[in-house]
Amino acid sequence: MLILEYVDKLLNGDRRACARLISIVENDEEEAKNIIKEIYKYTGKAHVIGITGPPGGGKSTLTDKLAKELRNRGKTVGIVAIDPTSPFTGGSILGDRIRMQDLATDPGVFIRSMGTRGCLGGLSKATQSAVKILDVYGADYIIIETVGVGQSEIDIVKTADTIVMVMVPGLGDDIQAIKAGVMEIGDIFAINKSDLDGANRTAAEVKAMLDMGPRKDRRPPIVQVVASLNKGTSELLDEIINHMEYLKSSGELKKRREDNIKTEIIKLIETEVMKRVLEKSQTNHALEKVTASVANRKMDPFSACESIIKLFSDNI
Amino acid sequence: MLILEYVDKLLNGDRRACARLISIVENDEEEAKNIIKEIYKYTGKAHVIGITGPPGGGKSTLTDKLAKELRNRGKTVGIVAIDPTSPFTGGSILGDRIRMQDLATDPGVFIRSMGTRGCLGGLSKATQSAVKILDVYGADYIIIETVGVGQSEIDIVKTADTIVMVMVPGLGDDIQAIKAGVMEIGDIFAINKSDLDGANRTAAEVKAMLDMGPRKDRRPPIVQVVASLNKGTSELLDEIINHMEYLKSSGELKKRREDNIKTEIIKLIETEVMKRVLEKSQTNHALEKVTASVANRKMDPFSACESIIKLFSDNI
Repeated sequence: MLILEYVDKLLNGDRRACARLISIVENDEEEAKNIIKEIYKYTGKAHVIGITGPPGGGKSTLTDKLAKELRNRGKTVGIVAIDPTSPFTGGSILGDRIRMQDLATDPGVFIRSMGTRGCLGGLSKATQSAVKILDVYGADYIIIETVGVGQSEIDIVKTADTIVMVMVPGLGDDIQAIKAGVMEIGDIFAINKSDLDGANRTAAEVKAMLDMGPRKDRRPPIVQVVASLNKGTSELLDEIINHMEYLKSSGELKKRREDNIKTEIIKLIETEVMKRVLEKSQTNHALEKVTASVANRKMDPFSACESIIKLFSDNI
Repeated sequence: MLILEYVDKLLNGDRRACARLISIVENDEEEAKNIIKEIYKYTGKAHVIGITGPPGGGKSTLTDKLAKELRNRGKTVGIVAIDPTSPFTGGSILGDRIRMQDLATDPGVFIRSMGTRGCLGGLSKATQSAVKILDVYGADYIIIETVGVGQSEIDIVKTADTIVMVMVPGLGDDIQAIKAGVMEIGDIFAINKSDLDGANRTAAEVKAMLDMGPRKDRRPPIVQVVASLNKGTSELLDEIINHMEYLKSSGELKKRREDNIKTEIIKLIETEVMKRVLEKSQTNHALEKVTASVANRKMDPFSACESIIKLFSDNI
């Protein structure tokens, strides 16, 4: 069986098998399931880092420098760059931006770009599968990098062990705009482009925001970096490693990973149940019939919903 | 019954009842259901306009000027301003921006701002309910205005009859970034701030993009406006009215509204089914048990999903 051959090769660190398997999970939902079922028992070793923040924050450069720093420390790195807005798959970000040449040719680094197109089972599911494949491939660290801070990107980045929120000076009102529900997920705040005017002010704003929030056992550190000049990258990596130490010693790692697994299972249940429910709803054109009734104002949407649900047994 | 009293008043054009009912649909999912069941038969009269596009495009000003122009033509207007990122409800956008004073005091205009906080059943559902209430209140036109072009905002704006995509000169690469899956939904393109350098180029870029897309029966018009100076607003409104004429004469209106209704019903079914499935999954801590097994790598997430689904009857 083809999948098993690829998985065997993946376990032996075969780079082409890794690339091939990621392409499969992007494009074939059924095969993705078979692959994950096969490799899942080998996962859970990598430290997964999510890098997010508003567009224009230099996340891509920061990711590259972090990867470089990890390589300097003898670690292997997988990078999954997420671009839900991109019309292209498997090349958009790599094609659009200049990744450091020495990274692209380094066998200890595996970079993959993922867009929505081609991700049949959804970008989030494909990304989670890609992370698992990179984990089994042997990456010590896996960096998930997003383009923006949309809901789908936040959902993806939340699956990481450590979330780095990248801010830049001069965002002004935009900081306000992304505050709600987004800033809270940062385990570490990186103020990039800290050689620009206003870096201290941005750091102070982030600090003030953290002061306003609920008291936590661990206060997210704020690190000032200039990724383009490779300043502060090493300190940022130290904080990322510190965070993993904290996660382990506090028992948070187990809890966080279990929460993520639960969310993942619920999402899988939702997809599967809705697939079945929609199939059932098509029986005798039930869904079309209630839609027409609602369109004619003979029925309201809630009653339509109830009438469809009644089609199933009381066992749901 | 309180709801019925409010609904009676709403049907008589009572402004306070309208405001009160919108607050209820934001905060109480069960009551929202009762309200919509009660008023649904009176809906479907208003022309719903969705205004979207990247941040900084001046959508708020354009919305105000369009409302003003509609008032000049003797029409009543409801405005629902959506801000999913805002930590506040019912005041964030109104508080942050300056709405034209004469609009705020005009009894023929009803403005409502909605954020995620407080929308228990989700922002999308609350917005759709608010639009229905404004429809019954008697608004001839309802404008849904979003802050950005995130997925949740796109989903909301898609429920409109006419979608106006607002672009501005100088967005550069950002146009590229929002192209996929977003530009296609525009029925009309408004190039705002057309007194700025590059307006013609932006119009040309939009035109080029439309040329590349699939041929449609109707080609979305491109209108250059300067909302702040009230230039082109009247032409834009003419195009919006033309679009409704097209929708009616081509039969597209019926089709589009039915598609939206179907999506709405499916979403309601999903919410309801998942509520029941999750309740069922908690029986004997089944979900917690499989989560623990997956966390220990004794089971993979897909098998966990299957084992939970097996708990239900074959009738799903």
